[in-house]
Amino acid sequence: MTDLAGPSEIAIAEVSDVVDRAVGAAQTWRRLDPGARADILRLIADRLEASADELVALAVDESHLTETRLRGELARTTFQLRFFGEVLDEGGYLGICIDTPNETWLSGARPELRRVLRPIGPVAVFAASNFPFAFSVAGGDSASALAAGCPVIVKAHPGHRLLSQRCGEIVLRAFHDAGMPDGTFALVESDEAGRALVTHPGIGAVAFTGSTKVGRMLFDLAVGRVQPIPFYGELGSVNPVFVTRRSAAARLDEILSGYVTSFTQGAGQFCTQPGILLLPAGVVDNERLRTIVGAQPAARLLNDRIDAAYQEALERLEDRPSIEVIAEGSTREDGARTPTLLGTTAHNLLADAEHLLTECFGPVSLVAAYDEDSQLIEVAEAIEGQLTATIHGEPDDAVVPELLDVLAERAGRVIWNGWPTGLSVTWAMQHGGPYPATTSPLHTSVGAASLSRFLRPVTYQGFPDQLLPLALREENPLHLPRLVDGQYRSGRRLDERN
Amino acid sequence: MTDLAGPSEIAIAEVSDVVDRAVGAAQTWRRLDPGARADILRLIADRLEASADELVALAVDESHLTETRLRGELARTTFQLRFFGEVLDEGGYLGICIDTPNETWLSGARPELRRVLRPIGPVAVFAASNFPFAFSVAGGDSASALAAGCPVIVKAHPGHRLLSQRCGEIVLRAFHDAGMPDGTFALVESDEAGRALVTHPGIGAVAFTGSTKVGRMLFDLAVGRVQPIPFYGELGSVNPVFVTRRSAAARLDEILSGYVTSFTQGAGQFCTQPGILLLPAGVVDNERLRTIVGAQPAARLLNDRIDAAYQEALERLEDRPSIEVIAEGSTREDGARTPTLLGTTAHNLLADAEHLLTECFGPVSLVAAYDEDSQLIEVAEAIEGQLTATIHGEPDDAVVPELLDVLAERAGRVIWNGWPTGLSVTWAMQHGGPYPATTSPLHTSVGAASLSRFLRPVTYQGFPDQLLPLALREENPLHLPRLVDGQYRSGRRLDERN
Repeated sequence: MTDLAGPSEIAIAEVSDVVDRAVGAAQTWRRLDPGARADILRLIADRLEASADELVALAVDESHLTETRLRGELARTTFQLRFFGEVLDEGGYLGICIDTPNETWLSGARPELRRVLRPIGPVAVFAASNFPFAFSVAGGDSASALAAGCPVIVKAHPGHRLLSQRCGEIVLRAFHDAGMPDGTFALVESDEAGRALVTHPGIGAVAFTGSTKVGRMLFDLAVGRVQPIPFYGELGSVNPVFVTRRSAAARLDEILSGYVTSFTQGAGQFCTQPGILLLPAGVVDNERLRTIVGAQPAARLLNDRIDAAYQEALERLEDRPSIEVIAEGSTREDGARTPTLLGTTAHNLLADAEHLLTECFGPVSLVAAYDEDSQLIEVAEAIEGQLTATIHGEPDDAVVPELLDVLAERAGRVIWNGWPTGLSVTWAMQHGGPYPATTSPLHTSVGAASLSRFLRPVTYQGFPDQLLPLALREENPLHLPRLVDGQYRSGRRLDERN
Repeated sequence: MTDLAGPSEIAIAEVSDVVDRAVGAAQTWRRLDPGARADILRLIADRLEASADELVALAVDESHLTETRLRGELARTTFQLRFFGEVLDEGGYLGICIDTPNETWLSGARPELRRVLRPIGPVAVFAASNFPFAFSVAGGDSASALAAGCPVIVKAHPGHRLLSQRCGEIVLRAFHDAGMPDGTFALVESDEAGRALVTHPGIGAVAFTGSTKVGRMLFDLAVGRVQPIPFYGELGSVNPVFVTRRSAAARLDEILSGYVTSFTQGAGQFCTQPGILLLPAGVVDNERLRTIVGAQPAARLLNDRIDAAYQEALERLEDRPSIEVIAEGSTREDGARTPTLLGTTAHNLLADAEHLLTECFGPVSLVAAYDEDSQLIEVAEAIEGQLTATIHGEPDDAVVPELLDVLAERAGRVIWNGWPTGLSVTWAMQHGGPYPATTSPLHTSVGAASLSRFLRPVTYQGFPDQLLPLALREENPLHLPRLVDGQYRSGRRLDERN
């Protein structure tokens, strides 16, 4: 998506039909009991699994990723659909909150108030190139928006076009077989259609994973509308790793090997790839680093556009005066690349932060040597918003408490003695962060809380029980947890309580 | 705030000092235990109450509102500060969620993950003119941002300048006496300073209550920054009221009297004022409406600017060809105005929606007569995002279920057989809605959930207990409720459980 102009009349007309169908399907989908929506998410997972061989073969061909990786990613994707089913079954995602009437309430007589989160309407999802399953057609953004009760229109990524079409067919067929209306789910393909989606009045929110440049362009379109809508963009992150002097002394081998595995995994094409490692000066020589990096296999990048962008960004980085090339990657005849490792000092990193503290998407990372612990704090304070920040340290390292506090101000996830890649889909996962990591620091695009991006609160005041949505009725027929007059009440059936 | 240009160099320099102090104070304020923050909110409430006579006298003088109303509003404001203390004590606002490690988790080995909501940083609050206490210096936006753990910089409203300064002094003194750093709270005064605040990199979020025009201008500044930030604007709302045929037959007197009280209360200067009443054609004659409206007292509007804007908007409305003036308001020598009631038909309302379905801030409302129940649905579908929408009906009215569903798609709060004014501060209150009611449909500016506007999730992965914030430690020293592996766990002490 390099054309930054607005959508053409033709794209707008094409997309209008698709959005109109989504708007038409919205009521049926949102009115389904959460349990029924969970069943359909599980059906989609079953169908994707049933076609695993065909889908993985398509994905290998289009993305250049390995079959092992792609089988794992598909498993993650189907797990995610089923996990969101569990989130629906648990029911806390609806945020139900009830106030009983109270005539003597001090801010003015309190009527009966019942608050619930309600789907925001059709969601436009922009698929990512680097996760052909997990952040694409039936990936996290689609699954969480569907789980929340919103129809979804995916703008497919051209990097895996056939796979997208095939996944789209499978999802559509599952909705059809489950009796859901045409329009609950759709796929569009061009960049123009994508821009037309973002500006269409029928769209309630946008989820995007990709580059900062394209993400910002679409964000500007979304917030520039006559009626602005939420835009959840997951953009760029450097994911810095800070290694304390004592942890380097205690387990340097383990740290270096974990680092190189993490930054070269998937040819470095992860949004959580560690792009910078802060290491005490003098603890390792370049020869040793070269050996570890040199042992990594070559891999083709996702597509020619990404390969060219990587080459260009890498050259720009290597041209910076303070950059030393520790291990120079090479390119094989079939286009596969081996990783590159660059070196600098913490001092130079700070002096040239604009160019060095920035994401370079692909198999490269930068080791920055520091002399004083205080430089760790200085670098932490200089970084922009991040998806992750990692500390390798000892629990009683003097620098750690302050370093952790500064990093928690700038990142969505802070990691201790681990690596940022290998993001799991869980209840407590946070995959987000201040700009430019995302355009919406209050949210996550991975994990149970990702549904909340697509839910809007509505309070019902004084309604008779039979007019309330099932989720809000006094007898709690959907067995949802709720806060009543500020007290938590489990929604479980009596026979399930222990 | 009518000057739409960006801030000048001078305003930016002045504001920079204020924001730098807020940034400097942020760590101390956010690191306080929630209970200690609650105590300081209660101290502010005590101090405001101790100065009630002085403050109310200033407010009467500057706002032209009645002493009774202002004493009530001050009580609401101090209640709100104490209520947010209760919200902090309850602790659910931190959204604590813990995953225990699980090697066999299907989306990839699950490390230990602990998620908590964390203050977003210094918040700029734009005070409203129409609530000199409850939506001003120590009002809801300030109280919720402070409760969330964010320093606050208020841009005072010029409509009650002396009151703002005095309230600001009281809040500052309370922070000082509680040992909090200079910078936890500050007040700035000019529109220019306000714009400089929104564009200052040290500001983490903005809360605004006011007109759609100014709100949109500031929203555009906030999202147009190099690093965009959340902008919570509460802008315009018409708050339509739909009266079914059967409820009109059953209790017309009560409905008309409730309606006129609600739209004329506070000289109609409420964001929840009912601006449109849909009534069956022929159930009431204009003479009767004139009598009810004519019985309402005259009142001066908040200030000359609002009075002039009201006059202009009223003339524009009265000039629309389909508008009939049912009761013409008059202006007394001291500037006090009596209310105006306008009439039209549902058909004309739809034909001229752009001009008629729009907020007119002041003591005027529009009665629209409908012939068919289907017109209620058509009008509901034609309205933009609203703070509230109200139905007066009978539980088994045929039109109600569909009408309610359409209104819940467009409003933050739906009301049954009541009136939208008289907003209470509670656990389940929702004061928000799709644009243009607000710029952020996922949030509320009133009630317990208003804190969430200023909180950002951070997940801690794999940290030893002593490095975790107190709120996340295994022994749960702050006694917070939390979700552990998807199961709710009360944080109460054993001796408090029942």
